[in-house]
Amino acid sequence: MKIAVVAPSCSLHLEAATAVAAIVAARGDAEIAIHAQCFATAGHFAGPDDQRLAALREVMADPSVDAVWFARGGYGSNRIAEAAMTGLPDAARGKSYLGYSDAGFLLAGFDKAGLSVAHGPMVQDVLRAGGEAAITCALDWLVRRDAKALEPGLRPRSRALAFNLTVLSNLLGTALEPDFDGADLLIEEVAEHEYRLDRMMFHLTGSASVRRCRSIRMGRMSEIPCNDPVFGSNAQGIVRDWCARSDIVFGGDADVGHDASNRVVPFGLARD
Amino acid sequence: MKIAVVAPSCSLHLEAATAVAAIVAARGDAEIAIHAQCFATAGHFAGPDDQRLAALREVMADPSVDAVWFARGGYGSNRIAEAAMTGLPDAARGKSYLGYSDAGFLLAGFDKAGLSVAHGPMVQDVLRAGGEAAITCALDWLVRRDAKALEPGLRPRSRALAFNLTVLSNLLGTALEPDFDGADLLIEEVAEHEYRLDRMMFHLTGSASVRRCRSIRMGRMSEIPCNDPVFGSNAQGIVRDWCARSDIVFGGDADVGHDASNRVVPFGLARD
Repeated sequence: MKIAVVAPSCSLHLEAATAVAAIVAARGDAEIAIHAQCFATAGHFAGPDDQRLAALREVMADPSVDAVWFARGGYGSNRIAEAAMTGLPDAARGKSYLGYSDAGFLLAGFDKAGLSVAHGPMVQDVLRAGGEAAITCALDWLVRRDAKALEPGLRPRSRALAFNLTVLSNLLGTALEPDFDGADLLIEEVAEHEYRLDRMMFHLTGSASVRRCRSIRMGRMSEIPCNDPVFGSNAQGIVRDWCARSDIVFGGDADVGHDASNRVVPFGLARD
Repeated sequence: MKIAVVAPSCSLHLEAATAVAAIVAARGDAEIAIHAQCFATAGHFAGPDDQRLAALREVMADPSVDAVWFARGGYGSNRIAEAAMTGLPDAARGKSYLGYSDAGFLLAGFDKAGLSVAHGPMVQDVLRAGGEAAITCALDWLVRRDAKALEPGLRPRSRALAFNLTVLSNLLGTALEPDFDGADLLIEEVAEHEYRLDRMMFHLTGSASVRRCRSIRMGRMSEIPCNDPVFGSNAQGIVRDWCARSDIVFGGDADVGHDASNRVVPFGLARD
């Protein structure tokens, strides 16, 4: 089992790479190849677009790689996602792709292109409080498809999708938009004001394609900055309200979020 | 000439109302009716959704009202916009609607519904430095269609649209999305990080309907918070880059923005 790590968004911290490599070595059930591109920098990004794309395409095309694990989020994978899902090599189809947050742009496009993607912890998460649990969860799923790593509310043989709300809002209507038909759609968010959550839920639930989903389930919405004035509702009230307004079933809470407890949501269950 | 002021988003400040009423009285060429709803409060908003919608529908249906002037932005007009554009009374069709920022949700929906809308200064702008000039610009356009109030790059008998970028991004794909076909699309922004500008430009220019526009012109993007790390491009570089990537003509600068120099952009020129 060989796991390749690339950084399509922002640079990976060296201490995160070292810590995760040590965890993998101690487990002894996988090999991890952290691509040098993870440590490149170019302004906001882990190297220029062409360098990030080249590293991503390299590991996608490598038949010895079983899984591509995104190093971290931040911002920037949308800048290369459409190119990465175009002209896919055969070797890209046999592997898993794991990440969340900004990597959601890739999850969306790759899912649309028929690849096996999952929303779940990334390498940089090892630096969170309790972060080793997130890495263990990710590896348990990548290496041996451990069901305990999965988000507990996933329904058997049913399609689910999970996204950061901001990322999802920003990919609607683009070439990356996946098929929501009949899927349970899990959303999570971090560090967005309540008025912005409300505005994005308006956008999300106002989309005809999103309205074809089976339900929206709400992951954690953490580190919400203070709204001035007091908004008048809270995150769950906002999500419930827009589901009701748009006749989308509110499916309750989901165990995903920007934290060490973030569980794995494979998008492709319907195809399994 | 009777101008009605309502607040579909956040509450109007009393001192703004007083100052603008004094300007209108001194001009002597119009009557202004500032609806009591402008001063209502309910959490983030100028009253609950039903109160804001009722005030808006009241002035839209009033045949004695020649123009509806939105009091200010903030957030919230999207929550009532689709309802306001449904079942329009005949009297709604004979008047002008003026605002920008969050009011862009209404401009979009009302334009789609065939009403005469324009992007331009609002009542609360009188409180900006040099704000009286913004109010004069708005009134010169509302009262006597003064061409000097217009954004100087508008092409005769050609359709233009103007929006706050965040607002536009959040209405794409919803029931409020207007027709971009052949239009010059002017965008402006305030207080968004460069990585967010980049992400929204990805979203905007990734939309098949936006790609039918004739050009994108760039208004002011002000109060941009510091990007950490340095982003590697600036607002104009970002806008130009995404136009180039998506084969949209970059039409240069536009004289619109969150400031006292914000000029008027009527959407309906193509129909004039």
